[in-house]
Amino acid sequence: MDFNLLRGLITPAHTKIVMLIMDGLGGLPLDEGGKTELETARTPHLDALAALSALGLSEPVGPGITVESGPGHLAIFGYDPLQYRIGRGVLEAVGLDIDLGPSDVAARGNYCSVDAAGVVMDRRADRIANDVSRELSKLLTTKIEDIEFLVETVREHRLAIVLRGPGLGSAVTSSDPQKNGLPPLQIQALKPDSEKTARLLNQFVERSRNVLAAYPSKQPANMILIRGIDHYPDLPLFPQLFGLRAAAIAVYPTYRGIARLVGMQVLPVVGGSFTDEFSTLEMNWNEFDFFYLHIKDTDLAGEDGDFARKVSIIQEVDSLIPRLIALKPDVVIVSGDHSTPAALKGHSWHPVPTLVYGRYVRADGIAEFGERACGHGSLGTLPANHIMPIALANALRLAKFSA
Amino acid sequence: MDFNLLRGLITPAHTKIVMLIMDGLGGLPLDEGGKTELETARTPHLDALAALSALGLSEPVGPGITVESGPGHLAIFGYDPLQYRIGRGVLEAVGLDIDLGPSDVAARGNYCSVDAAGVVMDRRADRIANDVSRELSKLLTTKIEDIEFLVETVREHRLAIVLRGPGLGSAVTSSDPQKNGLPPLQIQALKPDSEKTARLLNQFVERSRNVLAAYPSKQPANMILIRGIDHYPDLPLFPQLFGLRAAAIAVYPTYRGIARLVGMQVLPVVGGSFTDEFSTLEMNWNEFDFFYLHIKDTDLAGEDGDFARKVSIIQEVDSLIPRLIALKPDVVIVSGDHSTPAALKGHSWHPVPTLVYGRYVRADGIAEFGERACGHGSLGTLPANHIMPIALANALRLAKFSA
Repeated sequence: MDFNLLRGLITPAHTKIVMLIMDGLGGLPLDEGGKTELETARTPHLDALAALSALGLSEPVGPGITVESGPGHLAIFGYDPLQYRIGRGVLEAVGLDIDLGPSDVAARGNYCSVDAAGVVMDRRADRIANDVSRELSKLLTTKIEDIEFLVETVREHRLAIVLRGPGLGSAVTSSDPQKNGLPPLQIQALKPDSEKTARLLNQFVERSRNVLAAYPSKQPANMILIRGIDHYPDLPLFPQLFGLRAAAIAVYPTYRGIARLVGMQVLPVVGGSFTDEFSTLEMNWNEFDFFYLHIKDTDLAGEDGDFARKVSIIQEVDSLIPRLIALKPDVVIVSGDHSTPAALKGHSWHPVPTLVYGRYVRADGIAEFGERACGHGSLGTLPANHIMPIALANALRLAKFSA
Repeated sequence: MDFNLLRGLITPAHTKIVMLIMDGLGGLPLDEGGKTELETARTPHLDALAALSALGLSEPVGPGITVESGPGHLAIFGYDPLQYRIGRGVLEAVGLDIDLGPSDVAARGNYCSVDAAGVVMDRRADRIANDVSRELSKLLTTKIEDIEFLVETVREHRLAIVLRGPGLGSAVTSSDPQKNGLPPLQIQALKPDSEKTARLLNQFVERSRNVLAAYPSKQPANMILIRGIDHYPDLPLFPQLFGLRAAAIAVYPTYRGIARLVGMQVLPVVGGSFTDEFSTLEMNWNEFDFFYLHIKDTDLAGEDGDFARKVSIIQEVDSLIPRLIALKPDVVIVSGDHSTPAALKGHSWHPVPTLVYGRYVRADGIAEFGERACGHGSLGTLPANHIMPIALANALRLAKFSA
């Protein structure tokens, strides 16, 4: 979407939009000719909503392209993920409420296990326990020359590493070989302005290895891997761009981080269940025009290859849909940021089932929310960043275009 | 598709992709409300494959745009035909195994018949016999100033003309009036660097007219028409671009030429039947990751307006599908480079029925391969150059996109 076009059309209104994102929603049948997770799930409320909705299949970046959560979310928030790129390190740091400044550089770290020869045996250090991980991260936090290295555990083996100080470029390579059985790589500068960053990151990795080796208790992490090194991105902010008081309801740090990056207000969720997220929606209903509500567990089940659990999570979310509808939202979007079929145990390129409901939506009259049903919908196969303009229009928030 | 994006995502895999192209596959009913050629054909094997596939309708260039074989093929090979343009002359020359250099210029020629006033009466010289055509082409081969003119018969009236020597631009107009009843046009330079080319081509046409007039035996060709003048294109090569050892199985020179242009290895086909092409596929199965298999006769039948023959050729191809499936390809694409409805006796703009089969394809469950069935498929109406990324993804040959 052309943001300059949209900006000129944004019109105030007293309408409310809810975007319900089930992470990794799209799936695949386990057996040839079978049903996907979403098709298998009994979803009477989503099916009833589908009957009053326009359906389609959304693609975050393009045909055949599998995405990480960052680009997947930027797309559903209306941004072109190829134009606006955010390093994973920034996502992790912002998700932890670390207040990044424009000259800070952030990286994603992994605790890992290497063998005596330095070869990575487990990129996730056996998913090290949170408390041990936090303990280690405190020890890794340091200062090298004039640069502070702030290390914080996201969850298990996952780290956010923030470099703070003068003269830091972010054009450097990653140290993560991306698969087990290979040694970590030296970090290299891709531009002259990033040579200091590369040099100090390599020193930081070396120091971390020594610290981990000297750690008194037995634990699986004896090395770290670094990737996704980036500065804070220069993004037009979602609330200004679309003229929406926008709130985010998410439990996982990464998604809270993405929402904060685009300027949404991230609401506290007391407890961490789906029900708690819907309660947060209800409690804050009067204060915002737009709610992004994120369900993580669909993706986790998909990543684990657990078809039945993904089905059951979808059913659980379905059971909460009446609470959403009771709020009388003007527009509801139900979609995902990408597909995560249990059959593939990971993110995939398959287009994501998408539903747009509203008083003025031209409904397709298909009373089923599923991949094949959405494939027959009038939204067709659409770029995910088209969803926001469609939602805004249906919320009567876009003026007429003339020359 | 953004080639820079794709290049960064290409991942090695041990999967095999077969792209079966029935030239001019798309059709039209002869009578209002009737069935197309493909819908009329009994295609039990393609229908069974369709049931396990994602279906759609592909457009080589855009809505309403009819293409020649060159751009049609570039699109199915993943290139944007508006960005990458190849003159017909280059296609014809490369199809004849003429080794074109970067400073050579190639043109497509036609033998034609003109009347006493020089008006074109038959742009194809009554489809002059191959042996006569070859005899004449030898006589037209010449040198003017420092430029060699190599003339070779493609088939019947169709010629490849290669200009070799210093200082040749390719920005010149065509001499072909494109219809009977008009005189040939003077060739004109469109840029200063192409003035020599225009001047010498006009001299070459004049000389050719004199040679043909002086030819002792009676034959219909007394003039030539020239079009499609171009240099060898600067294309990223298919095998490097997509990380595929790619082979082409085609009988007709033009298609062998296009495949060679994009860097595919063109396999010899002993005999010229469909069966021989499938045998070539089987014999070379272990040596390549990607096979382009081209069937020409669907297009020829369409061009001739022979609906029944096109139906029968499609049925013949269908009967060979079990041999393809027996090889256990990971991904199969069945499509065409454009439509050639018998009802129109020529290429047309109609989107082309397209099927993508594979273990990880999210199948639409539509057990029919036909235009209307494909119109209901989840691939929707898609640009033809999206087919390759979709095939690569389904062959697990694309990594995840992050920032």
